[in-house]
Amino acid sequence: MSTLKVPQPLPPVADDCEQLRKAFAGWGTNEALIISILGHRNDAQRKLIRETYAETYGEDLLKALDKELTNDFEVSTQQRNTFLILFRLVKLWTLDSAERDAFLANEATKRWTSSNQVLMEIACTRSSDQLLLARKAYHTLYKKSLEEDVAHHTTGDFRKLLLPLVSSYRYEGDEVNMTLAKTEAKLLHEKISKKAYNDDDLIRILATRSRAQINATLNHYKDEFGQDINKDLKAEPKDEFLALLRSTVKCLIRPERYFEKVIRLAINKRGTDEGAVTRVVATRAEVDLKFIADEYQRRNSVPLDRAITKDTTGDYEKMLLALVGHDDA
Amino acid sequence: MSTLKVPQPLPPVADDCEQLRKAFAGWGTNEALIISILGHRNDAQRKLIRETYAETYGEDLLKALDKELTNDFEVSTQQRNTFLILFRLVKLWTLDSAERDAFLANEATKRWTSSNQVLMEIACTRSSDQLLLARKAYHTLYKKSLEEDVAHHTTGDFRKLLLPLVSSYRYEGDEVNMTLAKTEAKLLHEKISKKAYNDDDLIRILATRSRAQINATLNHYKDEFGQDINKDLKAEPKDEFLALLRSTVKCLIRPERYFEKVIRLAINKRGTDEGAVTRVVATRAEVDLKFIADEYQRRNSVPLDRAITKDTTGDYEKMLLALVGHDDA
Repeated sequence: MSTLKVPQPLPPVADDCEQLRKAFAGWGTNEALIISILGHRNDAQRKLIRETYAETYGEDLLKALDKELTNDFEVSTQQRNTFLILFRLVKLWTLDSAERDAFLANEATKRWTSSNQVLMEIACTRSSDQLLLARKAYHTLYKKSLEEDVAHHTTGDFRKLLLPLVSSYRYEGDEVNMTLAKTEAKLLHEKISKKAYNDDDLIRILATRSRAQINATLNHYKDEFGQDINKDLKAEPKDEFLALLRSTVKCLIRPERYFEKVIRLAINKRGTDEGAVTRVVATRAEVDLKFIADEYQRRNSVPLDRAITKDTTGDYEKMLLALVGHDDA
Repeated sequence: MSTLKVPQPLPPVADDCEQLRKAFAGWGTNEALIISILGHRNDAQRKLIRETYAETYGEDLLKALDKELTNDFEVSTQQRNTFLILFRLVKLWTLDSAERDAFLANEATKRWTSSNQVLMEIACTRSSDQLLLARKAYHTLYKKSLEEDVAHHTTGDFRKLLLPLVSSYRYEGDEVNMTLAKTEAKLLHEKISKKAYNDDDLIRILATRSRAQINATLNHYKDEFGQDINKDLKAEPKDEFLALLRSTVKCLIRPERYFEKVIRLAINKRGTDEGAVTRVVATRAEVDLKFIADEYQRRNSVPLDRAITKDTTGDYEKMLLALVGHDDA
């Protein structure tokens, strides 16, 4: 469920563009104006704004935003960092979801820290068609394929898992083969008991079966072998590959819990991990951020918007609050 | 280039449907009539015929054909086999290309003989979007994903190669990174010299790079190391995995040569391998069968249509000849 609030009635798109143009004019940028508009328009509306803006002013809206960034000479490093954090959120949010996923995935293939997690997250929490549109957008934006970059930038077990994950086009029907679920639950248990975490079959099952089928398999796993597969995958708590396997299971079966944890860890960190908060809010606001926020409150006994207010400041805070549906449209 | 001949002017689709209906009426089937129509209609026209036929007679054209098959009680096993061979060709041809690929791939995941070759062929000779449409059709037809079945039905090195091949969505631009081509040519040569044919990087390169990039890499390989990569992949001529690697390279770089060889081996075999001939003719007639036929003539000093006439008989021969463009529309 979306947290986004869109004003009723909606201002004409030409007005939105004119206001945004004004926000970029003169000295500095009128961030509040940008947030009040873009923070309250849905996917289709933002797309129309970008198209109309480009037609009217002969410039891409994101390029205009980018220019603001490079033109601001007279700011301190601190101000600049603050603006960069806001800019990344506004930019990710303004992109359509396929471009945004392509952008995040590309960024992940170029970094090391926690990038595997981001790639897995995109591969496992999007619908089959959404993942595919991201792969198409990747071709257009980067003149190569996503799997090519993932394969090139990862090695060993991580590659073995991530490559089929990002290449998957899972069946999305509800049909479940219970016999198969039992066989594969047993197979998973065998491999995990032997600590064969990078086993071909284990990866094949997680990377190719439908979510409904995996869910049935893991339910059977629990019934038959006494505990959640993720408990059994915790044998070596510091092992990064095992952590990625656990996240994969979570993303496939309970994405809202996975995202709740990403936000929780990002907020609880000394000096908030804005990268992670931005990513989750920008990618989930129109999908399931409502559920993620509910989960957050249950787990932390604090509403998500209050946690955001406590941990962030300024325009970045305002934009986040707009997207989690805290302010009025 | 297509070998198909379509009559000018084209009869109205309603007439085609009426004729086909007549071909199924009464005792037996009028195969000549079916061939004269379906053997001379392109992809879009056949689709329209199927739709119109279903609307007019409340029955799928392929189901009608299927019924003919099951209703023919009074035929000998020989006649039945002859009809089955013709029926498979008519059926594959009548399906749209995505359904046809899904059907062939599904058939391949359920068989053992040479099925790996068919899966690789579909993965490596179709465009990225075509492969994707086949994966979508697979969901619709079989309520599961292609990669799921491929992963489940293959093991070891074959799975390691086939799974990323069928899951790929290659970039199709012409851009080539020459530095990368050199690095990866060297990498390939290193691995092949060590007989590490199932090496992660070797498979990654073949499974994820664009055709243009692979071509550049293999050209550099030849320049730098003195011979074609496929020569170096022939160290163990009887090794089936090596044979599959060689075919993969061929399908990516010179598909018409690959298909020429498939037809050549199928025709030269004692008792013609109709399965392979049917597959190549039905899948390539509207793509590059003209080039394949040219290649065939160069390699065998016999025109393809003459080879077909010599090796096949009856209505199957007639339908093949129609699709290779031998008869008049």
